[in-house]
Amino acid sequence: MSIDPALLEEAYPLQSHLGFRLTGWRADFAQVEMPLAPFMMNRQGLPHGGIHATLLDTAMGFAGCYTGDPAVRQMALTLSLTVNYLAQAEGDTLIAKGWRTGGGRKTYFAEGRIEDMHGTRIATASGVFRYRSPS
Amino acid sequence: MSIDPALLEEAYPLQSHLGFRLTGWRADFAQVEMPLAPFMMNRQGLPHGGIHATLLDTAMGFAGCYTGDPAVRQMALTLSLTVNYLAQAEGDTLIAKGWRTGGGRKTYFAEGRIEDMHGTRIATASGVFRYRSPS
Amino acid sequence: MSIDPALLEEAYPLQSHLGFRLTGWRADFAQVEMPLAPFMMNRQGLPHGGIHATLLDTAMGFAGCYTGDPAVRQMALTLSLTVNYLAQAEGDTLIAKGWRTGGGRKTYFAEGRIEDMHGTRIATASGVFRYRSPS
Amino acid sequence: MSIDPALLEEAYPLQSHLGFRLTGWRADFAQVEMPLAPFMMNRQGLPHGGIHATLLDTAMGFAGCYTGDPAVRQMALTLSLTVNYLAQAEGDTLIAKGWRTGGGRKTYFAEGRIEDMHGTRIATASGVFRYRSPS
Repeated sequence: MSIDPALLEEAYPLQSHLGFRLTGWRADFAQVEMPLAPFMMNRQGLPHGGIHATLLDTAMGFAGCYTGDPAVRQMALTLSLTVNYLAQAEGDTLIAKGWRTGGGRKTYFAEGRIEDMHGTRIATASGVFRYRSPS
Repeated sequence: MSIDPALLEEAYPLQSHLGFRLTGWRADFAQVEMPLAPFMMNRQGLPHGGIHATLLDTAMGFAGCYTGDPAVRQMALTLSLTVNYLAQAEGDTLIAKGWRTGGGRKTYFAEGRIEDMHGTRIATASGVFRYRSPS
Repeated sequence: MSIDPALLEEAYPLQSHLGFRLTGWRADFAQVEMPLAPFMMNRQGLPHGGIHATLLDTAMGFAGCYTGDPAVRQMALTLSLTVNYLAQAEGDTLIAKGWRTGGGRKTYFAEGRIEDMHGTRIATASGVFRYRSPS
Repeated sequence: MSIDPALLEEAYPLQSHLGFRLTGWRADFAQVEMPLAPFMMNRQGLPHGGIHATLLDTAMGFAGCYTGDPAVRQMALTLSLTVNYLAQAEGDTLIAKGWRTGGGRKTYFAEGRIEDMHGTRIATASGVFRYRSPS
């Protein structure tokens, strides 16, 4: 995975607060990575499901908003997000991938997946997004 | 809303990191509140959808795990979570409520809702959860 | 429940083929009823989950398309539908209710529920819909 | 796609009523095909979204229940089903595919997809299922 350095943006607030990085971005695809860290644990000592949802929403959001031009920033709002939790992660990183799978100029559909470092599928997701008008 | 003080638990790591509080808990119901804060903003300057998902997963998780006895801590894993994003919050607090709506001893179903301080419905959710065996 | 007789439409093809009826319709709400019948059984002899999905999609679709004027027929397309299956129905009728819960002129959100004759919650649903332009 | 003839079962009631066929079945995968027919149309003259949900639930259900032995019939109940509606079908057949993507002995996860004859992705789905004990 890689990303055109010209397209890298300064981390936004929640991104900084949680510490995930955009590690891949091209038309209809984005990848986000997050180191597993103690602060993300839930009541049971496992990564909180909200972390997976956050990464998947992020990857699917970027996947639909690629323009290839740093001066043209497309934005989208999530209308609906479904996450299925398949397995516990091993290793120290969560890798979330999102694909734009359909839609048009106003709304789009996406699918996503989180894998751990061993390639085990940890979570899957689908979502519907609405494009925002250019500001 | 209220919660029996004997049932209050020390905040777990993600709860501390994000700053939400359990403000209601009884059989089949839980409420979680979170002050809106700059760190939770996304690329567009709006609260990231992962925050809503986190709060809804939390409220629905607690809703199904009430025991009324601080010595008996029931846990559950999220199998599936769906969140719909209806509106932007106004004011300074997100209030998430979760209800256990059905299921049995092994799995349960829940619904959730986030409102802002004015009672506007910001997001809704449903989920399927699996009980963990007592440790 | 009731429905203004002036708003009753001729059953559309799938409606005739499955035999469900619109038994309630007002702003932001619709109700659909279907007699349990042998033809709807699945491989296990239980009502097929596709029947519940059909009824819930229908009830939530009508709920968002009420105009109160038989000459103005609003239509919508389903973007996303989530159904949770809580319990087995008893008795001889499935009663599906749908509520429009938010949205605007282009898209809307809805929730739905199926109950049996005893009021037991059989299934719940949520969905996102897109309005079609008037033809 | 193909299916071991020894595994073909008599059509169950809803299958006969709607006219779909199981056209592929192996470990963790199943395929269902349905001719587009006038009876499946909705109020707008388009295939009703409940048809897609039915086919996807069916394909994902079979995908998780393959045993390879006609004498051992595994059954499962749908806990949760999410369907996204991407495009209108062209041609005369809907082809639904389902994959078991994870889970264990008690529950499993699946993903599904409907394509038309041109390979256009019409709908996608995910679901959580619970195995029934052998009777």
